[in-house]
Amino acid sequence: MLSRSIPVNLPNQAYKVVIQAGGQADLGSILQAQGLVKPGQKLLVVSNSQIFRHYGPDIMDSLLNAGADVEKCLIPAGERYKTPKTLQKIYDAALAHRLERGSALVALGGGVVGDMTGFAAATWLRGIGVIQVPTSLLAMVDAAIGGKTGVNHPQGKNLIGAFHQPRLVLIDPHTLQTLPRREFRAAMAEVIKYGVIWDAELFDLLENALVLDRVEALGDDLLGQILIRSCQAKVDVVTKDERESGLRAILNYGHTLGHALESITQYRQFNHGEAVGLGMLAAGEIAVRMGLWTEVDQSRQMQLVEKVKLPSAWPGDLDLDTVLTLLSSDKKVKDGQVRFILPQAIGQVIIHDQVPPAIIRGAIQSLQA
Amino acid sequence: MLSRSIPVNLPNQAYKVVIQAGGQADLGSILQAQGLVKPGQKLLVVSNSQIFRHYGPDIMDSLLNAGADVEKCLIPAGERYKTPKTLQKIYDAALAHRLERGSALVALGGGVVGDMTGFAAATWLRGIGVIQVPTSLLAMVDAAIGGKTGVNHPQGKNLIGAFHQPRLVLIDPHTLQTLPRREFRAAMAEVIKYGVIWDAELFDLLENALVLDRVEALGDDLLGQILIRSCQAKVDVVTKDERESGLRAILNYGHTLGHALESITQYRQFNHGEAVGLGMLAAGEIAVRMGLWTEVDQSRQMQLVEKVKLPSAWPGDLDLDTVLTLLSSDKKVKDGQVRFILPQAIGQVIIHDQVPPAIIRGAIQSLQA
Ligand SMILES: NC(=O)c1ccc[n+]([C@@H]2O[C@H](COP(=O)([O-])OP(=O)(O)OC[C@H]3O[C@@H](n4cnc5c(N)ncnc54)[C@H](O)[C@@H]3O)[C@@H](O)[C@H]2O)c1
Ligand SMILES: NC(=O)c1ccc[n+]([C@@H]2O[C@H](COP(=O)([O-])OP(=O)(O)OC[C@H]3O[C@@H](n4cnc5c(N)ncnc54)[C@H](O)[C@@H]3O)[C@@H](O)[C@H]2O)c1
Ligand SMILES: [Zn+2]
Ligand SMILES: [Zn+2]
Repeated sequence: MLSRSIPVNLPNQAYKVVIQAGGQADLGSILQAQGLVKPGQKLLVVSNSQIFRHYGPDIMDSLLNAGADVEKCLIPAGERYKTPKTLQKIYDAALAHRLERGSALVALGGGVVGDMTGFAAATWLRGIGVIQVPTSLLAMVDAAIGGKTGVNHPQGKNLIGAFHQPRLVLIDPHTLQTLPRREFRAAMAEVIKYGVIWDAELFDLLENALVLDRVEALGDDLLGQILIRSCQAKVDVVTKDERESGLRAILNYGHTLGHALESITQYRQFNHGEAVGLGMLAAGEIAVRMGLWTEVDQSRQMQLVEKVKLPSAWPGDLDLDTVLTLLSSDKKVKDGQVRFILPQAIGQVIIHDQVPPAIIRGAIQSLQA
Repeated sequence: MLSRSIPVNLPNQAYKVVIQAGGQADLGSILQAQGLVKPGQKLLVVSNSQIFRHYGPDIMDSLLNAGADVEKCLIPAGERYKTPKTLQKIYDAALAHRLERGSALVALGGGVVGDMTGFAAATWLRGIGVIQVPTSLLAMVDAAIGGKTGVNHPQGKNLIGAFHQPRLVLIDPHTLQTLPRREFRAAMAEVIKYGVIWDAELFDLLENALVLDRVEALGDDLLGQILIRSCQAKVDVVTKDERESGLRAILNYGHTLGHALESITQYRQFNHGEAVGLGMLAAGEIAVRMGLWTEVDQSRQMQLVEKVKLPSAWPGDLDLDTVLTLLSSDKKVKDGQVRFILPQAIGQVIIHDQVPPAIIRGAIQSLQA
């Protein structure tokens, strides 16, 4: 039975990412073992009804058995509810349940639940604890780890937020069985990302897999390895740069062009992971054209994207002028230069501030359908 | 001309509290000297129209002259607007002015503007800078220093908040000339508090003053000394306990009973400072009755409260049962025991968890009109 604990050693808060098959039923005792729940300890589980229906009862039982005083707060599902208004619902529940400084929130869900619950915890009584129990692959390998929390402003994603590290992250791979397939594939883009930017062995593991597009087909062992190596990659990077002042930028590999593509297609045609997949392919093409990495490695990256059954061609009718204009207004622009994360080898990227627009254009064109 | 700089040395952020007569007109150059403003640096000044009318134009000019790209955002005045809704206005202005990670907010106003602007800064783009320019005596000696920020929940004050230290605090005593007299007197309660809990010399200074109830009558020198010593006291305490885990509790001297009184009288009869004054007198009486400090010191404290022209008698018709019930539901209750900060000598208090209810009752009764 898979069980692994990855320590996250940050200067002001050390915590563990526990990856454990069937772990949700043990949440109470895992928290007890870490000294994170005492008899009478107040906890508020935040989730949406879709997820809570599957996993809520077990979690509540487990926390009750550990002696906690637990209530739940259900919020509407979906990115469009990641707003200050939904946040108020969590605050209201925190008040109704009379949470105190020593109380904690438990985020049970995908990245939307995790980011909002984390932000509510960061700001209720000037900061209470949060325990992340991610249920989507994206939340497991990315959103739940590293302490970024927040909600959207009507005019931009995650503009309102705080850094607030969780007390514990519990990943139970079993919950992925109910995750919609398109969500699984999208998050696999981030897994490929970790292979390219940080962990060549993870990349090899993915290359050697027969199928990568359906969680049922992976097998417990491969899924476990993917989770462990991806989480470790994220932990490594955020531990080296908690507040996003330098290295953490490499986590944006594939995201600069990915965001532009998401936004030009009005967030309808591609979801985040699909756009990131296409963004990584374009970044790879740019790197090839700049003599930074090889065509062989680029085609290996392409094969992984295809194996996950993520789109591998940019839309043929895309207006590249719009893409370039949008890029130069991206928040990652520094002194007018677009900042690209470019691969040099499998497992290694560099941050590059001077990519000529003609190369960006050519790279995308070569990928258009 | 008064000019003093008090360093605040916190592990993750060191900053200065600059107390300078006429300093607001020099804000730009003071920030330049500290390396806090560069040419083109985006700043957003947050204030209310009442205060901005007096002090806005000079501040804006001074910041523009330092080469900053400055905009303003005016929010409605008053505690009842210290809400998530008003916060949205600040976020909207931050977006409209396209603030970036390196930008900063400037809070120009009393504690309400300071707390909300500080919280907006704590949460915009997961944390940007804030410069506090307090204009009320309370904000100068208390709210602007120490990094507590927040807004109210409809059902409780400051329930939503964050710790976020400012980059600089600039105190210009001249602005106190326009502060309503009742606001000045109320804040003097906190000044007396610093004398009792921390700084016996400040207490002496106040005792030796001829008048304390009107800012015009104080004279520049005494006012300067009061500001410097009060700020230093707050800095000393928060530097020793940034996150309110222990020592910082002594800042609540007079506040336990003060809050109860404010709340029983529906926040109408007494303002915060007036209630704190009465709370300190009651705490002093309790301490006398418990043999912790002398009647002489208690009457010295009483004389200061009277010299400031703050109320010195508790309302005669107050129901003491309600006071005691309310106390036991206060958030400062630890394991059912009300926590009191009690004086032992001028300049020294202790935290006491076991004050018998009969003593609380007797102490208040002795102060009732
Ligand atoms: N904090 C960070 O560092 C970070 C990093 C990346 C992304 N994010 C944020 O994460 C969010 C995206 O996360 P997401 O992809 O998990 O989206 P999501 O939370 O919206 O989840 C996607 C959908 O799957 C459902 N779902 C989740 N787990 C399920 C399960 N086990 N079974 C059935 N349905 C399930 C959700 O209810 C939702 O409808 C975005 O808001 C993004 O900004 C944050
Ligand atoms: N962050 C902290 O550590 C801390 C500490 C104590 C109090 N507070 C908060 O501070 C707030 C109270 O602060 P306050 O007493 O300054 O109240 P306030 O900000 O409401 O100011 C009182 C009134 O005086 C006006 N005013 C302020 N300066 C003026 C000037 N120079 N000339 C003319 N009018 C002026 C204001 O517009 C307001 O109408 C509360 O919300 C309280 O929670 C925070
Ligand atoms: Zn991503
Ligand atoms: Zn006070």
